Amino acid sequence: MIMSFNLENIISIRDFKKSDVDYILDLADEMVPIAKSQQVCHKKDGKLLGVMFYEPSTRTRLSFETAMKRLGGDVIGFNQKQGTSVEKGEVLYDTAQIISQYADAIVLRHDMAGAARFISQNVDIPVVNAGDGPGQHPTQTLLDLYTMKSEIGELNNLKIAIVGDLKYGRTVHSLVYALAMYNVEIKFIAPDELQMPPEILDDLRKLNCKYSIETTLLDNIDDVDVIYMTRIQKERFPDPKEYAKVKGKYRLKAANLKDNDAIVMHPLPRVDEINFDVDKLKNAMYFKQAFNGVPVRMALLDSIIKD
Amino acid sequence: MIMSFNLENIISIRDFKKSDVDYILDLADEMVPIAKSQQVCHKKDGKLLGVMFYEPSTRTRLSFETAMKRLGGDVIGFNQKQGTSVEKGEVLYDTAQIISQYADAIVLRHDMAGAARFISQNVDIPVVNAGDGPGQHPTQTLLDLYTMKSEIGELNNLKIAIVGDLKYGRTVHSLVYALAMYNVEIKFIAPDELQMPPEILDDLRKLNCKYSIETTLLDNIDDVDVIYMTRIQKERFPDPKEYAKVKGKYRLKAANLKDNDAIVMHPLPRVDEINFDVDKLKNAMYFKQAFNGVPVRMALLDSIIKD
Amino acid sequence: MIMSFNLENIISIRDFKKSDVDYILDLADEMVPIAKSQQVCHKKDGKLLGVMFYEPSTRTRLSFETAMKRLGGDVIGFNQKQGTSVEKGEVLYDTAQIISQYADAIVLRHDMAGAARFISQNVDIPVVNAGDGPGQHPTQTLLDLYTMKSEIGELNNLKIAIVGDLKYGRTVHSLVYALAMYNVEIKFIAPDELQMPPEILDDLRKLNCKYSIETTLLDNIDDVDVIYMTRIQKERFPDPKEYAKVKGKYRLKAANLKDNDAIVMHPLPRVDEINFDVDKLKNAMYFKQAFNGVPVRMALLDSIIKD
Repeated sequence: MIMSFNLENIISIRDFKKSDVDYILDLADEMVPIAKSQQVCHKKDGKLLGVMFYEPSTRTRLSFETAMKRLGGDVIGFNQKQGTSVEKGEVLYDTAQIISQYADAIVLRHDMAGAARFISQNVDIPVVNAGDGPGQHPTQTLLDLYTMKSEIGELNNLKIAIVGDLKYGRTVHSLVYALAMYNVEIKFIAPDELQMPPEILDDLRKLNCKYSIETTLLDNIDDVDVIYMTRIQKERFPDPKEYAKVKGKYRLKAANLKDNDAIVMHPLPRVDEINFDVDKLKNAMYFKQAFNGVPVRMALLDSIIKD
Repeated sequence: MIMSFNLENIISIRDFKKSDVDYILDLADEMVPIAKSQQVCHKKDGKLLGVMFYEPSTRTRLSFETAMKRLGGDVIGFNQKQGTSVEKGEVLYDTAQIISQYADAIVLRHDMAGAARFISQNVDIPVVNAGDGPGQHPTQTLLDLYTMKSEIGELNNLKIAIVGDLKYGRTVHSLVYALAMYNVEIKFIAPDELQMPPEILDDLRKLNCKYSIETTLLDNIDDVDVIYMTRIQKERFPDPKEYAKVKGKYRLKAANLKDNDAIVMHPLPRVDEINFDVDKLKNAMYFKQAFNGVPVRMALLDSIIKD
Repeated sequence: MIMSFNLENIISIRDFKKSDVDYILDLADEMVPIAKSQQVCHKKDGKLLGVMFYEPSTRTRLSFETAMKRLGGDVIGFNQKQGTSVEKGEVLYDTAQIISQYADAIVLRHDMAGAARFISQNVDIPVVNAGDGPGQHPTQTLLDLYTMKSEIGELNNLKIAIVGDLKYGRTVHSLVYALAMYNVEIKFIAPDELQMPPEILDDLRKLNCKYSIETTLLDNIDDVDVIYMTRIQKERFPDPKEYAKVKGKYRLKAANLKDNDAIVMHPLPRVDEINFDVDKLKNAMYFKQAFNGVPVRMALLDSIIKD
């Protein structure tokens, strides 16, 4: 089966058809030996990725840089406002115009939802959204899917528990729309205050995606294939006592995973919702998940940057 | 005609003979396909550019980095004082000695006039001045000349309006000395408080450069080939009311450019002196001007870094 | 004589056998033409060094980056906490796990003694300690040895004056253990408050290393081969008057080096303990010492990063 990839920009996972997702996941597989530096690649020799990060990031920024460099290309840009003309009051639009004059593609992280779409409509080179505030984070979603698929075999028929802050977490919002392309069952495990927004649940029903709403962690992970943990941020709670009550209830420990084969994922950084004693279990997949960001982003960059 | 380039350091445009300028502008033309990554170049493979930026910059720093990387080389350095030994009190002289041990050329931006010249006299590798406070910014001047020449055909017989803060703008100070090498006519358009300094006007008269002093924008741009806009900075005015009075008078809008073929340039970043509606006109040349920084800096780096 | 290098991580000079030191010093010699970019090297093509710098540094960070790039490889990472997930509270352990997924080796500078050892025990790629607070700085020691050996001919029979803050300086602590592998004589020249800690002196006696304790500079440098200067930091003195008393006594001037062939070294940055008039003397070796960081670190990276 010959597949093709038709997106010029990577802005939202909702722009992807299922065939686009499958194309990237398959291409990512081919990228793994290069990502591990078992093979040297010169495909993007002479090409430059323009990295525009207006918010702090280790994982996302460095995995894009790693991806571009493993492909043989190089990187220019900035990872904070300090030290750039942004400090002189330059608007995003102008800065993006400039970077588009220098680089062959832009990766943008910005605190304003819609920023990446706006820029993609105003520059002549491909744009990748690396997180736009409360908006989208499509490359995280693709590496999450890739991790599930490569660890478990296929995405259809997966049972997935998604745990933590489901109300504000852009990562899980993007993820569920992608999962809804496949025949999966999702458990949303969160305190009432942080459950998945009703409009997203409405969308899932329209997409015929099976899900249930749960409020407790430990009695809901025995029959799932994936436990997808996320941070619960103290700042989300108006009353610190409410946070204290909730916090420990959504924390995973090694003892909770006896006789459980589910893989444990996390977009990272974690604070304390996954105990360090989980790290040594075979269930722990969050660091490999971070690695998977490299081949997945290599596949995306390879697809949108013309040779 | 065989030309040659004899400068070892790029410190001030006033060190350039006309033949040096012409050499760089011609070589920049050859660099364009590489700058656009239509061709891959390995000429500076293994070479390192040492970037020492003590002041914030997006355009200048990234276009030097782009230039070096498009040539096949790479970059080391810093783009702010934070995170360097400068924070431990190291003097510029010592830091430059160190970088000169690592790199094949230095690009220096510093807030002190004369810094680049001083360093070039004390290290064994070529030094490029990327702006020394109120002093010089010769690579900006060369890309400005390149933009005029490549868009209009030749520099002789150009009519150029230079608009905005002419008193403090180091960019326009460098530019006029370079323009004076050619047979041009300049209109200096600025409020009285921000006009070109008398000593520079004296120099221009000695160089037989034709110019006029103007205080209004709109009735002075119909007969020019180039409208070179610059920022007027609020901080320059002791009384904010004076600034408010002056500000709107030097702002260019699309409506002001009807039936006018002049190219509009700006060293960027702009604040609001060029309306966004100008961006879509064929007159707007400021983003292409930013691009031109890459082939021009490629030409300079190629000339001073030995293979 | 075929030698080999058996260390997988570079954590402390005390992990080195004499044969390991000699191996690196010899290999560094071979790296010099590449470090000077007289030769182009592609040996580490496609490899990535992960730079994790939690403390400011120019020399160390840039010389590692230079070393990796001169070897044909490239670099990812961060040089300050700002702009990384560390700001979101991520622990060192997790950040290192992530970087180990992206890169082929880690260079770590951290303010906590033992940080590099801890990380090396918890990731699957080689780790180089680039300074862990009051702990070790083994690559500085190796470049110091390399400088002495390449300038003077051999390490055995050297007479070395080590001057300045010997109590708190991690650089000199590492250095003396390495020197003790050879048949050297050391003079420790410092004010009483800042002399070498007794436990290190005990170790030196056990290692049969000859040394003397001195409190004055000028009458102790006539019969040495090396004068190794270090900074005396004002903050070390509870009473600023004590600092003022001591300061000038350990300052080296050109006039002090008449008819003296000793090489003058300094780990840099200096503040004022070496007068600028020393820079032009043939004795001054501190900038060449900084250069030597490149071939020495090339030798280390080449040895620990698998092709």
